Amino acid sequence: MAQNKKQVEQITDMETDFAQWYTDVCRKAELIDYSSIKGMFIYRPYGYAIWENIQHILDEKFKQTGHENVYLPMLIPESLLQKEKDHVEGFAPECAWVTYGGADKLEERYCIRPTSETLFCEHYANIIHSHRDLPKLYNQWCSVLRWEKTSRPFLRHREFLWQEGHTMHATAQEAMEETERMFSIYADFYKDVLAIPVVKGRKTDKEKFSGAEATYTVECMMHDRKALQGGTSHYFGDGFARAFDITFTGSDNQLHHPFQTSWGVSTRMIAGIIMVHGDNNGLVLPPRVAPVQVVVIPVAQHKEGVLAANQGVVDRLRAAGIRVKMDASDQSAGWKFAEYEMKGVPLRLELGPKDIEKNQCVLVRRDSGEKSFVSLDGIEQTVKTTLDAIHDGLYARAQKNLEDNTYACASLEEVKEKMAAQGGFAKTMWCGDEACELRMKEEAGVSSRCIPLEQEHLGDTCAICGRPAKHMVYWGVAY
Amino acid sequence: MAQNKKQVEQITDMETDFAQWYTDVCRKAELIDYSSIKGMFIYRPYGYAIWENIQHILDEKFKQTGHENVYLPMLIPESLLQKEKDHVEGFAPECAWVTYGGADKLEERYCIRPTSETLFCEHYANIIHSHRDLPKLYNQWCSVLRWEKTSRPFLRHREFLWQEGHTMHATAQEAMEETERMFSIYADFYKDVLAIPVVKGRKTDKEKFSGAEATYTVECMMHDRKALQGGTSHYFGDGFARAFDITFTGSDNQLHHPFQTSWGVSTRMIAGIIMVHGDNNGLVLPPRVAPVQVVVIPVAQHKEGVLAANQGVVDRLRAAGIRVKMDASDQSAGWKFAEYEMKGVPLRLELGPKDIEKNQCVLVRRDSGEKSFVSLDGIEQTVKTTLDAIHDGLYARAQKNLEDNTYACASLEEVKEKMAAQGGFAKTMWCGDEACELRMKEEAGVSSRCIPLEQEHLGDTCAICGRPAKHMVYWGVAY
Repeated sequence: MAQNKKQVEQITDMETDFAQWYTDVCRKAELIDYSSIKGMFIYRPYGYAIWENIQHILDEKFKQTGHENVYLPMLIPESLLQKEKDHVEGFAPECAWVTYGGADKLEERYCIRPTSETLFCEHYANIIHSHRDLPKLYNQWCSVLRWEKTSRPFLRHREFLWQEGHTMHATAQEAMEETERMFSIYADFYKDVLAIPVVKGRKTDKEKFSGAEATYTVECMMHDRKALQGGTSHYFGDGFARAFDITFTGSDNQLHHPFQTSWGVSTRMIAGIIMVHGDNNGLVLPPRVAPVQVVVIPVAQHKEGVLAANQGVVDRLRAAGIRVKMDASDQSAGWKFAEYEMKGVPLRLELGPKDIEKNQCVLVRRDSGEKSFVSLDGIEQTVKTTLDAIHDGLYARAQKNLEDNTYACASLEEVKEKMAAQGGFAKTMWCGDEACELRMKEEAGVSSRCIPLEQEHLGDTCAICGRPAKHMVYWGVAY
Repeated sequence: MAQNKKQVEQITDMETDFAQWYTDVCRKAELIDYSSIKGMFIYRPYGYAIWENIQHILDEKFKQTGHENVYLPMLIPESLLQKEKDHVEGFAPECAWVTYGGADKLEERYCIRPTSETLFCEHYANIIHSHRDLPKLYNQWCSVLRWEKTSRPFLRHREFLWQEGHTMHATAQEAMEETERMFSIYADFYKDVLAIPVVKGRKTDKEKFSGAEATYTVECMMHDRKALQGGTSHYFGDGFARAFDITFTGSDNQLHHPFQTSWGVSTRMIAGIIMVHGDNNGLVLPPRVAPVQVVVIPVAQHKEGVLAANQGVVDRLRAAGIRVKMDASDQSAGWKFAEYEMKGVPLRLELGPKDIEKNQCVLVRRDSGEKSFVSLDGIEQTVKTTLDAIHDGLYARAQKNLEDNTYACASLEEVKEKMAAQGGFAKTMWCGDEACELRMKEEAGVSSRCIPLEQEHLGDTCAICGRPAKHMVYWGVAY
């Protein structure tokens, strides 16, 4: 176990330095690498494979709910970006600008898309004419650029991968239903696939998307009790449609503007996975997106029949639709154990000569370290059941972290105290005034995470100013 | 059938104006739309769905042969692009340059990737240290930018979608084997999936990729007898590895440079599909990449039981893994027939009250227009067999076009004459001298398409200069 120990020691303990622990996991688990441009990261095979699994599952959900994929250009003419005032104000400061094509200076600058509302609107103006053309339910998988000053792997990239849905509807009600539908798909995905509990809510006006009428969000709590915005779904009303002159002839034969939504999640999800489930031995992957769900380690592999028996188990698991990998390299068992712990493989299966004799193998769970001897009969079902149990165990642990660190506060003072002592989510009543939100930010260092859909009545007055309260709000320090 | 007629008349006959026919098909089949930036196109849902099917099948082949997907940044610092001399000369003139990040002028310009050899090399220099790190078999699905002066849908975009494989190997032989392996995967894909026959060969030095030692190509012949380069696979030797200082410690404990390949296909494939299989009624899709393989049209759908019976067939076909769509809209049958002909759906299935009584349905093939009455018993197998027959029929027709329009010539004069009369591929002997290639271009207007792997001995001397011949070459006018 010397080598095992050695490798594990290469990452910082999260209790010592959470930020360094996070960066160590990103690097040592080979999820990401740096490029020569600050803030532009390389998604390595293991990190990208997690994203591919996320894509597969989400893409199927999108298609089941009637959405179609498209691909629009990555460049936006400056004049197009400027058509919607709030939107350009929000995004122009962080655009990367293309000014030359080959040796020629361009007549107009183009920005690399930070998001594609404007491009979709331009396209929709061309293809929407009649109520028969509605709804349009489009989604795009792509990368976007935001020229941020600071950067961290998966959390803040100048270029990151995401999906952006953009839809158009004949009525405000249909558009609002779409906004909520996609928001629910995100929340369910976090729970059922990533094993991450979320708080579902609406953003305050201050925190909503540039140009949106309403933004819905799923907020997650990390191990260090900070918040991560997990995904957003926006309702635009007909604001962009008016700015971009998108009209359709209704069944009443009159011209109308359609109503719009957009919604997106990004590779930030991977940051969430790392910071919700990871531990001091490295990454811990929720089984449903793990590139390798089971790693098979032959014990005493030089002995006759061992490799063949291991391969037999691999074949059986693979045939059962389980993502499995065998490591029969000449590295020591200790090295292998540490390596796949670091990479967060949910389940390790060990099979040696004695096990073969007894028609059994050893299963070791990554989440709990629990070791069990199980029969090779029905190993497929045993593995599947164990993977589900790991999912449930990860979810329960994350849920406990969320619940243990969410608390009601009656005053700004109380928020300051508890936040300093414990972090997490403070919930308070709020009058709805942005001035109080700004004060909370300045004095307690927290931003409003959301106005949860599930409201609780904690009192009648705003915890900040004492005026009559409108909503209960979650506050926290966000990534 | 009035409406049917009307819509079909909306596209130009290919015999009248092939270029206009092509553009008409791209637009009317709703594959593509224009954006406000010249040369930047919108991949609409139907066009993108073809690309998704191509991606699925190719990605599986890549993974089966040990490749892993990654994602590297879209921006390349100018200094990085300049590290390999031939490469930068080839690409710099058509780079789009980013010069501002937000309000700040950048210290160094970044180009949007026209291809990613330089980025992969930079990354490989960081992660390759030992012979144990080799081979590295990476692939990337992304878009690239080339600031072309002219543009045409799918054929020449300023931004287009593609995949680019980039691999590193311990020996030249392994790298050459990889180059050939991927080239064969492309050739097989064209034949087995797209129903397009290809000529497999090597590019001349003049036509090879900027910075490559050797470029292999699959060349296809379009309906108008022009050539389309269908995909390329490059062998780089260790040239880039030297320029980027990539080294590894061999099992001999010495430092070595690894050997490199890259290979790619793009959405140009869709141009090939259109121009090889399409006809004057629109698109004709090879069944294995068709987003909709069978369209089900209920006949007299207002009559009792008709819709339910049609839905039953749809469910059965879907359960059998066939991509099927029912159109039960209130459009006329004529409109529907024309619509799905335009969209190139391989097979139409009609089912009305009389058919239901007889436990049969009507199948109409898009490729031949052949209509047959078939039993609903075993309809899944009948449809699958028919789709395979359509694939084979499309391939045979394309193969005939290729064979009928490929001919040997003994002199430049003969090439000029035949090319003017017939187009297609002229094959001649060639001395290997670039001067002769240039003369062929100037006088006969053709470029060398490839030096085919399957060489024929047409004579002993170069058809252009009369000196001793080295190779047989295919010549043609290329898109």
